[in-house]
Amino acid sequence: MEYKVSEKFRSLKPSAIREIFKSLGTPGSISFAAGNPNPDSFPVAAMKKIADEIFEKESVTALQYGITEGYAPLRKLVAERLKRVYGIGKEDDELIIVTGGQQGIELTCKVMCNEGNVVLCENPSFIGALNAFRSLGARLVGVPLKDSGIDLSALEDALRANPNAKFLYTIPTFQNPAGITTNLETRKAVLKLAEKYDILILEDNPYGDLRFTGEDVPTYKSMDTEGRVIYCGSFSKVLSAGMRIGFLCGNSDIISKIVVAKQVEDVHTNNFFQMICAKYLEEYDLEAHIAGIREMYRKKAGLMLGALDRYMPKEVGFTRPEGGIFLWCSLPERLSLDEFVKRAGDRNVFVVPGTAFVADPAEVSHSFRLNYSMPSDEEIDRGIKILAEIAGEMLSEDRS
Amino acid sequence: MEYKVSEKFRSLKPSAIREIFKSLGTPGSISFAAGNPNPDSFPVAAMKKIADEIFEKESVTALQYGITEGYAPLRKLVAERLKRVYGIGKEDDELIIVTGGQQGIELTCKVMCNEGNVVLCENPSFIGALNAFRSLGARLVGVPLKDSGIDLSALEDALRANPNAKFLYTIPTFQNPAGITTNLETRKAVLKLAEKYDILILEDNPYGDLRFTGEDVPTYKSMDTEGRVIYCGSFSKVLSAGMRIGFLCGNSDIISKIVVAKQVEDVHTNNFFQMICAKYLEEYDLEAHIAGIREMYRKKAGLMLGALDRYMPKEVGFTRPEGGIFLWCSLPERLSLDEFVKRAGDRNVFVVPGTAFVADPAEVSHSFRLNYSMPSDEEIDRGIKILAEIAGEMLSEDRS
Repeated sequence: MEYKVSEKFRSLKPSAIREIFKSLGTPGSISFAAGNPNPDSFPVAAMKKIADEIFEKESVTALQYGITEGYAPLRKLVAERLKRVYGIGKEDDELIIVTGGQQGIELTCKVMCNEGNVVLCENPSFIGALNAFRSLGARLVGVPLKDSGIDLSALEDALRANPNAKFLYTIPTFQNPAGITTNLETRKAVLKLAEKYDILILEDNPYGDLRFTGEDVPTYKSMDTEGRVIYCGSFSKVLSAGMRIGFLCGNSDIISKIVVAKQVEDVHTNNFFQMICAKYLEEYDLEAHIAGIREMYRKKAGLMLGALDRYMPKEVGFTRPEGGIFLWCSLPERLSLDEFVKRAGDRNVFVVPGTAFVADPAEVSHSFRLNYSMPSDEEIDRGIKILAEIAGEMLSEDRS
Repeated sequence: MEYKVSEKFRSLKPSAIREIFKSLGTPGSISFAAGNPNPDSFPVAAMKKIADEIFEKESVTALQYGITEGYAPLRKLVAERLKRVYGIGKEDDELIIVTGGQQGIELTCKVMCNEGNVVLCENPSFIGALNAFRSLGARLVGVPLKDSGIDLSALEDALRANPNAKFLYTIPTFQNPAGITTNLETRKAVLKLAEKYDILILEDNPYGDLRFTGEDVPTYKSMDTEGRVIYCGSFSKVLSAGMRIGFLCGNSDIISKIVVAKQVEDVHTNNFFQMICAKYLEEYDLEAHIAGIREMYRKKAGLMLGALDRYMPKEVGFTRPEGGIFLWCSLPERLSLDEFVKRAGDRNVFVVPGTAFVADPAEVSHSFRLNYSMPSDEEIDRGIKILAEIAGEMLSEDRS
């Protein structure tokens, strides 16, 4: 039969990144395309020990249906940590466990938006979020990023032009893909604009724990006095990505709607791993574990920045992230990104072209994303050297 | 701030069943309200052994991001079992692992429906599915159930009145809540109607493995020659409900869209438990394990039917399920269901009123659902006796 799929799905494509991820695996290839944490960041031995205990003592709780809001001890422990580490959590805030940050993003949009409603986002932004909004029929309006964070005057223009926009989606810290952190002054100004135009903010902070240089900047949620911010966090980058555990914290009125939305999406998140997270938070030193991950990424980011400084032609720009797992390179506009990505792939080096991250699919991009959490130290040096050679070749071809 | 949530979420309430589930726990109370499998159906020792092996040998695969389609060995093993046990699976069929059958239902609707589109369903039907469709802005049109299954002439009327209906949602085997199994003749007629009116069928079969009496009836999917049926299955009732592992099998054109929808909903299903399922299917005898569960439920259903025969006034009707975990009782129309449920709750016996399962929330119901998988043998006898006493009291009050 011929399938009459919904309008919103007719044109929606799988994430380019997931597709690249699937096609990897050629021996000798170097991937800077991943969004994965380094597997050394998974505390395997501790998780195994906890898993054994759960099977011994609490197997029924772990394997039976649970409640949609999440495993109560985990909700309490996450709320406590958010308070302690980020200053997040007011009396009328609630917390729900979700199946990875991805679900938190999608559920927020589902509860807020009817088809055709506008969502504002940074441009470029996380493709998984953009596609989630598209999959619900929302219309994306992108706001450019500057080195200081989201462009404030462009944001105000967008708010004025879209008075019924439902929320602003932002990754203020170690942004994906750009690696940029929005500074405090900009954050305060964004909050003021959100008040002025009465719009909700969805603050996505999957990398916030991974600062390896510079000073922490307060989250939007910690400065929110009006229940205007929904905060989305995740254990994917600090305990395990494959277990799919994230959380949303926001005003109880909105979280109660999100509970209803989650109930009909997957009933609840895998119980067993909610319990593993709870027991890890209770019995182990998560902050010490995170300190180890920061140190690993500090070194890897340093290696990549060093290689870029050493090899890359001056005409190619790049961001200098203070944390997270990505940096963002920009070719001179006269060079073709498609050609660059193709030549890199021909030499078995994979990057994600900026076209994957634009709010408007018609937009031309000259940038690409580099990941430094997954490749080995040797691969970082060798891969950046190859990318630099290609940029050099293309620049000299352009001049000749 | 005041939250302007989407129209579809403004009136959507949490599932009445989940709410009852949360409020349980009074000592001495008897719940026939659950939809849970009996925890004796979880093969804890085997899962523990497999989990140990995964932590020892494959921890990175288990804890790292995976692909949206699901863990490849599990997809293969599930497809093989569907072929072997149910005769399901053609050359152009694909299989995706989902986060419980609930996600399979929701994703199908998301891919097929724009807001306002019509979904046909049995009336009564599974509240989790009905609310999933509502959460996406779909409009429900209920088709009554008879003892033989869905009412064919009412179905044809509904198809004629809704020529653009997107799909028929049906639980043909051991239906939730009614415990009814659609017979073969009716299934063949439904398939013919689906062809005639060119509509997709979403066949939900979470209980299909749990037949304890009578003969298997072929699934819609096994008789589908046109890619017209999407089949939704689950391990919740035979391995673990809390792990949230289900699957969809359908034509590859439609499954490829569902992959995109899942990617932006939770990226992929918990890897570790996908691997546990795969290794269980490979190394253990699932069919023998299921035979044990069938025997347990055969006994429990027999006890409940025996108690109903013994105690319940003849004016109260009930279905005689051949499998699954529910049966469906109907009060005479002159008695108030609300009053019955209230009196039962006052005596610490909990049932789910039929109002939870109606396609049209304005519909009056005189029926309630009874679960026999969770209560103990003693609770079944004692609880049914109490329900029978209440029905008797209300009948004699009505006569006086």
